[in-house]
Amino acid sequence: MAGVFDNPVFPYFAFYAIVVVLKTISMAFLTVFHRLTKRIYINPEDTRIAGGQGKVATNETIERIRRCHQNDIENVIPFVLIGLLYTASGPSLGSALLHFRIFTGARIFHTIAYLFALPQPSRALSFFVGLLSIMSMAYNVLPATKY
Amino acid sequence: MAGVFDNPVFPYFAFYAIVVVLKTISMAFLTVFHRLTKRIYINPEDTRIAGGQGKVATNETIERIRRCHQNDIENVIPFVLIGLLYTASGPSLGSALLHFRIFTGARIFHTIAYLFALPQPSRALSFFVGLLSIMSMAYNVLPATKY
Amino acid sequence: MAGVFDNPVFPYFAFYAIVVVLKTISMAFLTVFHRLTKRIYINPEDTRIAGGQGKVATNETIERIRRCHQNDIENVIPFVLIGLLYTASGPSLGSALLHFRIFTGARIFHTIAYLFALPQPSRALSFFVGLLSIMSMAYNVLPATKY
Repeated sequence: MAGVFDNPVFPYFAFYAIVVVLKTISMAFLTVFHRLTKRIYINPEDTRIAGGQGKVATNETIERIRRCHQNDIENVIPFVLIGLLYTASGPSLGSALLHFRIFTGARIFHTIAYLFALPQPSRALSFFVGLLSIMSMAYNVLPATKY
Repeated sequence: MAGVFDNPVFPYFAFYAIVVVLKTISMAFLTVFHRLTKRIYINPEDTRIAGGQGKVATNETIERIRRCHQNDIENVIPFVLIGLLYTASGPSLGSALLHFRIFTGARIFHTIAYLFALPQPSRALSFFVGLLSIMSMAYNVLPATKY
Repeated sequence: MAGVFDNPVFPYFAFYAIVVVLKTISMAFLTVFHRLTKRIYINPEDTRIAGGQGKVATNETIERIRRCHQNDIENVIPFVLIGLLYTASGPSLGSALLHFRIFTGARIFHTIAYLFALPQPSRALSFFVGLLSIMSMAYNVLPATKY
């Protein structure tokens, strides 16, 4: 595994994988920020945080962040898993960078489109572009696989 | 990492990992298909898609796909993560194929059982068979680990 | 990939990754246990399990386990993905063990704090300690990456 970073594509994969995973995790911080400032929590024991007076309720802003977070889980994690197999299969650096950058750009735009409720089909398009990148990587790995 | 595909089990692992991850992603396409044809959306800004007249609501078919998708996330991703460690630990090809094929078959059957609401315990059994495959792989990796 | 376990940090990473992934999966078993004993299910076709008389409903205990499971998905999987890149980047064993053990300990405590509804900020602290470990690993990998 000392040789993993010798794969010329791996250092690039590592960078974009870290960016999109940290972006996913940032949704958790955003949720916590809104729960604390709005004093709207998800568990009864949380309501005493930050001086009390909190309540268990649903809030449209927090629900929107939750949906964005869930969409990240459903897309970013498949990207990292398939991307790892794709990187291991020895793609050309140019082709790999195209996949990684399109996916990362699409998911950052998707987050902006989701959180600011931009008019559709902005979010739908970025969602499909991300999926397309994952499926294209999967398609490129398949010839190297056995079943 | 050039040598990753030299591991005789890895090309098989890559194939089954891609199949189950793509199967998971296909739930997103199914959700979009039903949202568009039923004109039932999850965000207010989505209702103008496809000629408008959509509304934000919950629909039992879409909720069922959502539950199936979530169950995939909770099972397929652990399979790929543990499967990667298992493959790296150098299992025999026969044993590895048994784990990969049983898991993949169980999850495909699980999806059919979920989406068509087949009588229980069909879905429960396929769920446990999948978990059993993951736990068996984890059990086989443990002797090679340190703590 | 035969050499993956030659990386001195990898056998340790494999151990802690397996522990936290199995901990995540154990939430599924806990959910099934409570659904069966409380006869409260998530799908109409499930209500005939275990002698019938079940019903589709929500239950606070089961919802709490579900939230804990979801929080695991949102934290444990990023840990394994970033941890794999971190391990591949060749960290010192001491530093790596610190990250793996702090994360694993924090998430086990988080589960206890969640399931037993311990007074806050116990759960919040263990949540942030886990995230901090992931972000510290990501920060340590970045110098080895390219973009």
